Amino acid sequence: MRFLTDLKLPSKVIVCEVAPRDGFQAEKQWIPTEHKVAIIKKLAATGIQIIEITSFVHPKAIPQLKDAEEVVRQSLELTGVKFRALVPNVRGAQRAIDAGIKKIKLMLSASDSHSLSNANCLTREAMDGFAPIIDLAEKHSVEISGSISVAFGCPFEGEIPIDRLNSIIKRYIQYGIKEISLADSTGMANPRQVYNTVGELRNNFPDVIFTMHLHNTRGMAIANAFAAMQQSIIQFDSSITGLGGCPYAPGATGNVATEDLVHAFSEMGIETGINLETLINVAKEVKQIIGHDGGSFILKAGPRSQLHVAPKSQQKLG
Amino acid sequence: MRFLTDLKLPSKVIVCEVAPRDGFQAEKQWIPTEHKVAIIKKLAATGIQIIEITSFVHPKAIPQLKDAEEVVRQSLELTGVKFRALVPNVRGAQRAIDAGIKKIKLMLSASDSHSLSNANCLTREAMDGFAPIIDLAEKHSVEISGSISVAFGCPFEGEIPIDRLNSIIKRYIQYGIKEISLADSTGMANPRQVYNTVGELRNNFPDVIFTMHLHNTRGMAIANAFAAMQQSIIQFDSSITGLGGCPYAPGATGNVATEDLVHAFSEMGIETGINLETLINVAKEVKQIIGHDGGSFILKAGPRSQLHVAPKSQQKLG
Repeated sequence: MRFLTDLKLPSKVIVCEVAPRDGFQAEKQWIPTEHKVAIIKKLAATGIQIIEITSFVHPKAIPQLKDAEEVVRQSLELTGVKFRALVPNVRGAQRAIDAGIKKIKLMLSASDSHSLSNANCLTREAMDGFAPIIDLAEKHSVEISGSISVAFGCPFEGEIPIDRLNSIIKRYIQYGIKEISLADSTGMANPRQVYNTVGELRNNFPDVIFTMHLHNTRGMAIANAFAAMQQSIIQFDSSITGLGGCPYAPGATGNVATEDLVHAFSEMGIETGINLETLINVAKEVKQIIGHDGGSFILKAGPRSQLHVAPKSQQKLG
Repeated sequence: MRFLTDLKLPSKVIVCEVAPRDGFQAEKQWIPTEHKVAIIKKLAATGIQIIEITSFVHPKAIPQLKDAEEVVRQSLELTGVKFRALVPNVRGAQRAIDAGIKKIKLMLSASDSHSLSNANCLTREAMDGFAPIIDLAEKHSVEISGSISVAFGCPFEGEIPIDRLNSIIKRYIQYGIKEISLADSTGMANPRQVYNTVGELRNNFPDVIFTMHLHNTRGMAIANAFAAMQQSIIQFDSSITGLGGCPYAPGATGNVATEDLVHAFSEMGIETGINLETLINVAKEVKQIIGHDGGSFILKAGPRSQLHVAPKSQQKLG
C-alpha cells in the first residue's frame, strides 16, 4: 500500500469576519459605536475581504446592535472590503437597504426547536417569511445569501437528518439563493461528519456555493475547516480573538478565532489575502478594547513562525 | 465531479494517557505521591489501555517525578492497563527495570538545538547514547519504543527537513526499535503537513508503527489527529484535562486533552475502549486535585451528546 504524500487543498480561501455581528451581540457590556467602527476599520486594514458588519435586528432583542445604521454609515467609506448584514425580517431588510448595505444574509435554524427558541417560529414558517424580504432585496438589487444554523447538530434535538438540510436548501434555491452558509452554531460538528455531509450536499446541489460558519466549542473548528477544504469549500466565517461565546455553557469557546484560522491556513500554504502579522496586532487591540478574548490560541502562543531563543548555550552547534 | 461521502478512517484507535509523565512534570507545585497514584488508578478505570506513568529522570532535573519508583510500585497491581516509562539514560533504565516497568520509551529531539537545550547533546550523540540502554532493556526482556520530539517543527530552528526524520528513524530501526512516536512537542504541526509527512514516512518505513504525540498549542491537535488517521495512524498520546503547558508561552495550551480527543473519536464513530462519561468525571476530579486544567474544551462545554432544554415554550411543536 502506498500512502498519498501530497494532499490537494484549495490554493486560496476567503475568510469572512463576523465579530462585528456574531461577536459583539454576545457582549453584555455596551461597546460604544466609535469602538465598533474602529475595530471594523482595523479589520478592513488586514486584507479581510468580507465583514459581517451587524444585524438589523430589533433594538430590544439585541440592544448591543441598536446602532446598526450608525456603524454602517461610518464604515461604508472603506474600500477593498465588502459588507454583509444579517436581517431577521422585512423591517430589518428595509433598514439595511436604507443604510446602504448591498448584501444581506438570511438565517434560519435546521431544527424546529432551535428555530422556535431563536425566531419563535418553525423552520418552515421562517422559510415562508423570507418571501417579502427577498422581494424587497431584489427590488433594490441587493445581493442575498442564506444560512442554516445548527446544521451539524442542534443543542436541543441532537442530530439533524440530512433530508432536513436537503429540503431547506431546495427552498433557498427556489427563492433564487445560491450562496448558503452551513453553520455549526454550537460547535457540534466533527470532521468526519463535515466531510461526509458537505460531500453529499455538494453532490445534491452542484450549483450552490456552500460556506462554513464554524464554532470551536469542542475544539474541532480547525479540524472541521480542514475537512471542508477536502471537499473544496473555500469560504469560512470567523471572529477576531474568537469573540462570541456559547449561550449554553458560560465560559466555553464560540466562533473560531480569525487569527487561529488564518494562521492555520497560512501554515498549510493556503492564501487568504490577509496579513497575519497585522491581523494578530489587531486581535491584541480588539482584546484591549473589548476587555477579554474568546479563546484565541495565537494570542497566547504566538504564530509558529515566531521562533524562540534556545535557553542554554549551544557551543556544540558552532 | 462527484464528492466522496464516506470518509474511511480506522474503526478503532488506541489512546495513551501521558499526564502522569508529561503533565505532572510541568506542574511546579508538588503533587503528593498518593494523589499521583489516585489519578493513575482513576485513569485506568476509564478503560485507557496504556499509561505513560512517569519518567526515570534524575530527581534534581525534574523534582516532581522523584517519586517515580513509589508511583510505579503502587500502580503495578492494576490490571487491564499497560505502563510505559520514559528513560533518559542507562541509570534511568536500570531504575525503571528495577521498579518493574516492562516497557520503556526513549526520547530524542529532531533538531540539534532542541536536543542541546533538552539533553545537552546533539541528536546524533543522543542516538549513540541509546546503545547501552537498549542492551540493558533487551537483557531484561523489556519492550522499547522510540520517540522524536519536535518532529514537525522546532521552536528554535523552525522547519525539520524530512531527511532528518528519515535518518533518525533508520537509526531507531538499526537498534531494532519498530514503534516510534512522532511528537509535535510545541504544537507547530498543521494537518496538511501531518498528512504529507506521515504519508511519506509510512511509505519509507512500512514496518514501523508510528504513533502521534500531539499538542494543541495553536488549536490544531484534533485536526492533526484527523489528518494522521487519514494515513491509518491508530495510536495517539493525550493528557487528561490537557495537563502539561508550553514552556515558551506561559498560559498557552500543551498536550491535547484526553477527554477532548476521546470525545472527538467518539463523535466520529471510532472506538477507543474508553468510557467517555467516566473519563469526563475523572477529568473533573483531576482538575480538582491539581487545582486547574490545561485548556480542556469538554470540561467547559460538555460533550455534544449532552443536550440542553430549549429556553422558550415550544407549544408549536406539540
